[in-house]
Amino acid sequence: MKTAEPLYWEDYAVGQRYPLGQTSFTETEIVAFAREFDPQSFHIDSGAAATSMYGGLIASGWHINAKLMRLFVDNYLDTRTSLGSPGVDKVRWLRPVRAGDTLTAWIECTAKTPSRSKPDRGVLHEKWLAENQRGELVVTIEGMGMVRRRPAAGAV
Amino acid sequence: MKTAEPLYWEDYAVGQRYPLGQTSFTETEIVAFAREFDPQSFHIDSGAAATSMYGGLIASGWHINAKLMRLFVDNYLDTRTSLGSPGVDKVRWLRPVRAGDTLTAWIECTAKTPSRSKPDRGVLHEKWLAENQRGELVVTIEGMGMVRRRPAAGAV
Repeated sequence: MKTAEPLYWEDYAVGQRYPLGQTSFTETEIVAFAREFDPQSFHIDSGAAATSMYGGLIASGWHINAKLMRLFVDNYLDTRTSLGSPGVDKVRWLRPVRAGDTLTAWIECTAKTPSRSKPDRGVLHEKWLAENQRGELVVTIEGMGMVRRRPAAGAV
Repeated sequence: MKTAEPLYWEDYAVGQRYPLGQTSFTETEIVAFAREFDPQSFHIDSGAAATSMYGGLIASGWHINAKLMRLFVDNYLDTRTSLGSPGVDKVRWLRPVRAGDTLTAWIECTAKTPSRSKPDRGVLHEKWLAENQRGELVVTIEGMGMVRRRPAAGAV
């Protein structure tokens, strides 16, 4: 969410769903990303892809993740309170993403953990989900974000 | 590994370490990737990055993963027997990667599981690790790959 006031760790609610928006894939960008980072034939060569187990060109899973990250930064991340991420868990590429597909993504807050060592911050556990234009789930990611806690009243 | 004969699921050994090679990061590519996929200020603006918690420009974690994927495809993946990946687990970005850093990466086979539903394939559990030029571990990923089993003698 993009809000006028900073969103602190306390402001996120377990069970809440937050929209990330939509992102579409063109053949040109699927091939460009894969040529640089994942040059398997079914990502870069529509002819070879047609006879592959995928039956046509598909986006690299890392490309899908990267485009979801862009939605996360544009539509969700609060740079005033974010303290980065130690990593992600359980990335699952459930269905192929093809040229012309549009993904709709959202985040669900699944758990909140105060930092044991640093009282100024907490961890948000966030499940990322993206569906294609047919309502089929195509990817899920279990993310973690470190977020500032709300300063105590009267504290500097 | 790139070998003359196809590498089947049976040919990978639990506990074995396989080299992925090296990859270096320039400021130009760090900024280009992040402008497209992860436009947080400490990935795209060296001035803002200098005053951030990272003390300078750092690569997006997704960029690091994508460049490791390129090493995986170039130096390890056997396209004759690979059947894709359902996902990855436990991505951990342990230390920042900066312009000028060179990562050396490898894969360790941590477990092998025959497919329960498809006797022609098995799953390889593979831990990806990358160190920087100071020998500091910067990222680990727990990957999974589906790989063809060796055809039985006499089978088509």
